[in-house]
Amino acid sequence: MTMEKGMSSGEGLSQISAVKVTAKDLETKQPQKDRRGGFVLVHAGAGYHSESKAKEYKHVCKRACQKAIEKLQAGALATDAVTAALVELEDSPFTNAGMGSNLNLLGEIECDASIMDGKSLNFGAVGALSGIKNPVSVANRLLCEGQKGKLSAGRIPPCFLVGEGAYRWAVDHGIPSCPPNIMTTSRVDSERETERKVFLFAVGSPSNGCRGRRIALIRRQEQGFSLAAFKRNKRKLELAERVETDFIQLKKRRQSSEKENDSGTLDTVGAVVVDHEGNVAAAVSSGGLALKHPGRVGQAALYGCGCWAENTGAHNPYSTAVSTSGCGEHLVRTILARECSHALQAEDAHQALLETMQNKFISSPFLASEDGVLGGVIVLRSCRCSAEADSSQNKQTLLVEFLWSHTTESMCVGYMSAQDGKAKTHISRLPPGAVAGQSVAIEGGVCRLESPVN
Amino acid sequence: MTMEKGMSSGEGLSQISAVKVTAKDLETKQPQKDRRGGFVLVHAGAGYHSESKAKEYKHVCKRACQKAIEKLQAGALATDAVTAALVELEDSPFTNAGMGSNLNLLGEIECDASIMDGKSLNFGAVGALSGIKNPVSVANRLLCEGQKGKLSAGRIPPCFLVGEGAYRWAVDHGIPSCPPNIMTTSRVDSERETERKVFLFAVGSPSNGCRGRRIALIRRQEQGFSLAAFKRNKRKLELAERVETDFIQLKKRRQSSEKENDSGTLDTVGAVVVDHEGNVAAAVSSGGLALKHPGRVGQAALYGCGCWAENTGAHNPYSTAVSTSGCGEHLVRTILARECSHALQAEDAHQALLETMQNKFISSPFLASEDGVLGGVIVLRSCRCSAEADSSQNKQTLLVEFLWSHTTESMCVGYMSAQDGKAKTHISRLPPGAVAGQSVAIEGGVCRLESPVN
Repeated sequence: MTMEKGMSSGEGLSQISAVKVTAKDLETKQPQKDRRGGFVLVHAGAGYHSESKAKEYKHVCKRACQKAIEKLQAGALATDAVTAALVELEDSPFTNAGMGSNLNLLGEIECDASIMDGKSLNFGAVGALSGIKNPVSVANRLLCEGQKGKLSAGRIPPCFLVGEGAYRWAVDHGIPSCPPNIMTTSRVDSERETERKVFLFAVGSPSNGCRGRRIALIRRQEQGFSLAAFKRNKRKLELAERVETDFIQLKKRRQSSEKENDSGTLDTVGAVVVDHEGNVAAAVSSGGLALKHPGRVGQAALYGCGCWAENTGAHNPYSTAVSTSGCGEHLVRTILARECSHALQAEDAHQALLETMQNKFISSPFLASEDGVLGGVIVLRSCRCSAEADSSQNKQTLLVEFLWSHTTESMCVGYMSAQDGKAKTHISRLPPGAVAGQSVAIEGGVCRLESPVN
Repeated sequence: MTMEKGMSSGEGLSQISAVKVTAKDLETKQPQKDRRGGFVLVHAGAGYHSESKAKEYKHVCKRACQKAIEKLQAGALATDAVTAALVELEDSPFTNAGMGSNLNLLGEIECDASIMDGKSLNFGAVGALSGIKNPVSVANRLLCEGQKGKLSAGRIPPCFLVGEGAYRWAVDHGIPSCPPNIMTTSRVDSERETERKVFLFAVGSPSNGCRGRRIALIRRQEQGFSLAAFKRNKRKLELAERVETDFIQLKKRRQSSEKENDSGTLDTVGAVVVDHEGNVAAAVSSGGLALKHPGRVGQAALYGCGCWAENTGAHNPYSTAVSTSGCGEHLVRTILARECSHALQAEDAHQALLETMQNKFISSPFLASEDGVLGGVIVLRSCRCSAEADSSQNKQTLLVEFLWSHTTESMCVGYMSAQDGKAKTHISRLPPGAVAGQSVAIEGGVCRLESPVN
């Protein structure tokens, strides 16, 4: 990929260095007979992915892509394919979603997840949900039930359930519960070489609120069990609270953590899918920040913030799907998923996404008081294009453009088309010298899918 | 007010009758010395308000306006003034918010509320909150705490809390709890002439999903205690479930309820405020639909959906504030509060709001499968205008345009400026023959506020 580093020219953006990556055109193989097409792009979070764990993050992204493609090839709905990818991502102990999620201040797991169907424009979401292994399955079931129309006595079916009520609804709809001790202390899949779970959370610089300062971060130790991690995190939080009363000690601590070259991981997971008919779907799932307040709901549960999917229509030349990751409060206040989806109707997807990340995210007036703006998105857009000269007349070509962009130090992605033998994975990083929270990385590609004309 | 009935001209809107009401210019008196200015507009829900209870709804709107104006005159923040209005609306047993809210399927009260500050653009929200008399107070406290910056160890303060976690946070921050039996069975304020609480919920027409059919509604009996109402509602729900297995019986039932000329009340409450400096704030609070699923969260808790407030800025010639009411799922899927706020930057506020209600709400592709689209909004926008010839040179004039618009049968509003002796109240209704869910009513006015130059 050709990389080009430049300065943005927009008003108020003079301090933002933009990294422009020219997309590589990924020509895919011809489709196999009797197998349906489609494309999936997944992420294992925008945050920080160390080189030492890159292999594990890539592996789970690869498996998630394969699960979605298997569904698409079997003719499943885009929403079912995106759910299959998310289930795989949630089941990994390396991601902060589903099993092994970050624990809140009370040592409990509370998950957020949502899904959107670009065809029906329906949405399902759960927030602060405990005791269910795959929160995305509950979100997808809410979406499906919502599509069946009104409940008895004309009651409107819910699209967003939280807490104990969400748990009861899930169990009532046949989704098995999972004891909290299994979710919090699960051992890593025996195929994996280590039994580790990383717990990190962002530590801001001291109280003055000016922008442009580097975010200092404390790295939490790796260990095998999330409950032990929680206890260690709590002790470190108590220490931090004592330390922060003494600015000199705090400064020393920050310098020390900067030397370790660590950063915060905000490893929400998500996926976007387009099926062989051009229908899109998007989903997102998160365990939220470590030591969050119980009951806190982040962007992964919120309409317009965590994911967005919208098929082509009268006013939309493109079908679009978006999934976000990062600091929930930043993604909520900018309604970033929907913002990206709207921007992607412009002619140049790459430029539109870059401008959105700069103007509507980093420079958003809604985040003017933040030290740094941390997030990432994966997006795809697709449209039917005229058959190429060498194509047979009973084939349609679906042009899929896919991109990822982040302001965090790194973002782990994977992608695969039904015509590929295996998924490609990548850990995208800000270039050396770029400052997390103030710079944008953007990369992507193009995929052409051929499918029989219906 | 001059009323004019016409047909809209937009694509796909041929079945929508629009009611255009030319705003009456409300010239207010000169400000009293040593008292600060400001304006408040409140609503007691978009739904159905019977003539017999009009007096009660108007009375609570009047009191809410007075509370907000008292705060503004004392120099309070716009957010504190809007909170004061909401507390009054929540405390009324006639509204579906706070005390005496609708009960869910388990016979519990679970409330949603949110608030937004146009100056800081901060937001606070609670969802599915039980055991707190004034949910808006918790939302406002979350907003205030969020403005203080990061928590210990750099944790980002939450802006949205739900369920038990929200309750714990509120109590930990000194907000008193309120036993559920008091909230569910509270007697009406002794000043009121009756002890009644109306429990209504919408009943759609049978399963086929075509648009344009009239929504049939079952009116629930009035009674003094919400627990008794819940039991009656449950029995009626069970009856409805049996009845719906027999279409003929259902048809009879619908005809019967239509004869009663009743409609659904979706009586969320809300307010928008502008203070003497031109800062705006908006808030909303709701008990949700009767017999909703526990854990269901509606628009009143959701960013962009329940309320929006945004001061004038580089790209916004006007400060805008919006609060919505109606069917939560419809308001969520159209992100209606934010949509209205953006539209209000156009030159003609009345036309912009009408077009938004028609094109982005009733005709929204996100609600294409709905029988009728039920909601209402109150909006205000303000800008500084040049001093008039007869004004003294040390005065500034703030031009405030305010509007309400609804697709429901009625909407109850109240408004007051700091220069008025008392609030004005109004129950806006669709004209005879207009169909709820398919027609738009819109009315409003203009107010000029004078305040000393800072």
